[in-house]
Amino acid sequence: MEIEDLKHQVRLSMSEKRYKHTIGVLETAVRLAGLYGADREKAGTAAMLHDIARDVDTGELLRLSETFGVNADEIEKAVPDLLHGKVGAAIARKQFMVENDEVLNAIRFHTTGRRGMTVLEKIIFIADMIEPGRDFPGVKDLRDLALIDLDRAIVAGIESTLRYVLDRGLPIHPVSIEARNFLLLTTS
Amino acid sequence: MEIEDLKHQVRLSMSEKRYKHTIGVLETAVRLAGLYGADREKAGTAAMLHDIARDVDTGELLRLSETFGVNADEIEKAVPDLLHGKVGAAIARKQFMVENDEVLNAIRFHTTGRRGMTVLEKIIFIADMIEPGRDFPGVKDLRDLALIDLDRAIVAGIESTLRYVLDRGLPIHPVSIEARNFLLLTTS
Repeated sequence: MEIEDLKHQVRLSMSEKRYKHTIGVLETAVRLAGLYGADREKAGTAAMLHDIARDVDTGELLRLSETFGVNADEIEKAVPDLLHGKVGAAIARKQFMVENDEVLNAIRFHTTGRRGMTVLEKIIFIADMIEPGRDFPGVKDLRDLALIDLDRAIVAGIESTLRYVLDRGLPIHPVSIEARNFLLLTTS
Repeated sequence: MEIEDLKHQVRLSMSEKRYKHTIGVLETAVRLAGLYGADREKAGTAAMLHDIARDVDTGELLRLSETFGVNADEIEKAVPDLLHGKVGAAIARKQFMVENDEVLNAIRFHTTGRRGMTVLEKIIFIADMIEPGRDFPGVKDLRDLALIDLDRAIVAGIESTLRYVLDRGLPIHPVSIEARNFLLLTTS
């Protein structure tokens, strides 16, 4: 599906605020794809659909995860918002006919990250955090870092999220820890 | 082995500084055991031996972990100090004839914690952090908390360690995250 067609359909599936964020992620992701040699079209598709399940309420998210055969682990059951990546990937496949696994995984893991992320997964993960509409302590440094070192930006992005989650006493998904460990141990 | 005999032997196996810390953990752990209905003798034995491998250098720690059949995971290979609990438990069993699994597990998991810790494991974990010789931001609050809510003290202790590790860019052992998640999700 062309990006312009996607924009039209996605606009109907989410709030105006979420759509504005999505367009911010689209622009950021396409720019990063150019910078890091990833496929711009795949980056655009993943960006447009990454939050397609984000406005779905908790109960519906749990119901959809069952419908789509998404296994919710104990952390996802406790914090169902974390499921919006996995459920979003299922919606992208079923309703938007996205078949490319790279794109689907970029949607699937955009919130938690995971061990051994592809470049496309890294781009969507960080674009989601640094798109122009985001505003949190350190976001400017993270934007600069994303332009010069994608892996270090991912580590810093995960750490920013970990501090946020620690401050609020929320569970931490172990796959985010594994994502950070993997990058710390494999990059110099 | 009686605690007094243990003290004598342990004194010969570590630096004066480490021994002083160990005695602090012993006193704290025995007190907490009384408070939370754990076996004081087991708490004392685990406390005396928890750091028995702490002064072993990195190379020797990796070598001993092979000798004792301790499987070092990738985080432990990257941060071999984390192995001193597992190697310490092996030394406790082989050289100090400790056969009780509760005591051995309290030694084994005293640094990382784990999902579903026993009361004895929790006591040694937190006693290690709050013994009188410890001095770090928040230690006084942690001491107070340990006297009124062991689980909340463990969560706070893990979070203190996580912030320390994040500040230094070190890998985080996922079992510590699992320990914290488990307590957050199972206690109210």
